[in-house]
Amino acid sequence: MLIMSTEHWKYVDMIKIIELIFLAIGGAAGAILRFKLIESELMFGFLPISILVANIVGSFVLGAFMIISNQWHLDSRYTFLVAFGFCGSLTTMSAFALDSTTMLQQSHIGFAMINILLNVSLSLGSIFAGKTIFSMIIES
Amino acid sequence: MLIMSTEHWKYVDMIKIIELIFLAIGGAAGAILRFKLIESELMFGFLPISILVANIVGSFVLGAFMIISNQWHLDSRYTFLVAFGFCGSLTTMSAFALDSTTMLQQSHIGFAMINILLNVSLSLGSIFAGKTIFSMIIES
Repeated sequence: MLIMSTEHWKYVDMIKIIELIFLAIGGAAGAILRFKLIESELMFGFLPISILVANIVGSFVLGAFMIISNQWHLDSRYTFLVAFGFCGSLTTMSAFALDSTTMLQQSHIGFAMINILLNVSLSLGSIFAGKTIFSMIIES
Repeated sequence: MLIMSTEHWKYVDMIKIIELIFLAIGGAAGAILRFKLIESELMFGFLPISILVANIVGSFVLGAFMIISNQWHLDSRYTFLVAFGFCGSLTTMSAFALDSTTMLQQSHIGFAMINILLNVSLSLGSIFAGKTIFSMIIES
């Protein structure tokens, strides 16, 4: 009985290790895609929007994934790969905060406010959009 | 001359690959630490603050790193490891947006507003704090 119990814990440990591997792969992939967006220096007029695009795309994918994962009863390792890993790492608060504080320190108060408003409202909107669109697709 | 030129590009490619490896390692580490914070389900009263803590810590480290990296002329691979990788992945916009939209959908408008205000203001404040504190430490 003790041996079975030990075997059980080994099995649980193995699942946890596999989940962490999926998390690490998703996290690395999200970070690399975010860097590729930063490297491409996307602009909207005078406003740098690489981080904004990363935040919009990652939030939309997370919203869509929540619906797909729930409807199709996906295994938890896909949550680790896509939700905690990829979407969590593709989107970022620190680079957005660095951009915004740099704008404030350079007295570009208007740009900083626009950057903050766009990032917050469009990230929340993308979660709603991802959820709503994929709910409609799956139910149709 | 053509051979030297090819060798030069191989060297440049090798640097880019090493930078991407540092980025992937930092990204994976940030994602795992963020998950550990989410798993610990930190609460402040009725407000879940795991993501907030990740955003504050990651923004502070990024602010501090900008000063250290600039003063000590650190190699670019540390920027990939710490700034693009670790801080970018530890902090997140998508999980913050998911939490906030869930609060809004459950008609917890007040909690959603507090969550948004705390995440944005404390992330920007942490960049300032990291920069200011480490400027003072290095100059003293």
